[in-house]
Amino acid sequence: MCNSRLEEALVEELRDLLDAEKRLTKALPKLAKAAESEELVAAFESHNEETKKQVQRLEEALQSLGQKPLGKPCGAMKGLLAEGDELKGEADQGALRDAMLIAAAQKVEHYEIASYGTVIVWAEQLGLKKIVSLLSRTLDEEKAADEKLNGIAEELNTLAEVSQ
Amino acid sequence: MCNSRLEEALVEELRDLLDAEKRLTKALPKLAKAAESEELVAAFESHNEETKKQVQRLEEALQSLGQKPLGKPCGAMKGLLAEGDELKGEADQGALRDAMLIAAAQKVEHYEIASYGTVIVWAEQLGLKKIVSLLSRTLDEEKAADEKLNGIAEELNTLAEVSQ
Repeated sequence: MCNSRLEEALVEELRDLLDAEKRLTKALPKLAKAAESEELVAAFESHNEETKKQVQRLEEALQSLGQKPLGKPCGAMKGLLAEGDELKGEADQGALRDAMLIAAAQKVEHYEIASYGTVIVWAEQLGLKKIVSLLSRTLDEEKAADEKLNGIAEELNTLAEVSQ
Repeated sequence: MCNSRLEEALVEELRDLLDAEKRLTKALPKLAKAAESEELVAAFESHNEETKKQVQRLEEALQSLGQKPLGKPCGAMKGLLAEGDELKGEADQGALRDAMLIAAAQKVEHYEIASYGTVIVWAEQLGLKKIVSLLSRTLDEEKAADEKLNGIAEELNTLAEVSQ
């Protein structure tokens, strides 16, 4: 069903992202549970709602290319989420653990920012306007989520220092 | 030697980054060899020179905290670089393979951008001005490397489309 090798590469990248986002919808509720700050819990929960919509957009993008909306196991995201899991297992409580959860989540956000940046450039090249429009919305959400985490981190780290 | 739990977290993150950058100094020459575009080869080669300096800055940062300059195996970077390795093994030639090498490299850059962002915020909180200054320089280089790859990607993808 692919019109070009670039379109094949795009499909592969969309499948990688679909797997990544699906993993994230399972991980975010755990991160929310492990977090202490109410603001951070709320940020993880609202980003989880966004992530569910992002999964749907990726499925829609794959279907618009005549592809089944199936993910392809994403090794990098497994590694990133394993880092988050390690953190949850550590004994730290409160602001410090929150700061570390944010650090892990921001790595995931940046992985996604890089990946969506790539698929949007490729979709533009292929003239796939619908995919560009769908996934540009997602990219904006990912950047906003990263910014929000930055703000929370700056507050939290002060607390961690005070309670050292 | 650590003054606080936040400083311990900072040391862990610096070790993770040191391992990541060392892996990258081994990977970048392979990426340069796999690339076709002269501009991309040059970008990978010059970023490799930067990366060697970034390794030294991380070692300096760890030493300034009374720590041995040793890395800690970084699972996420292993996953990211494995993605790059997969790409090199694929049969694509020319512009398309270059586009995919750039995509893999940008994921690595964004992993680093997220990580350096975290360590800089933590170092600021701890009043570690030397580390903030050293690693802010690196963060600027990583962002510039990502931007440069964006520019090359936009040219390359057009070629990939034309040769489909």
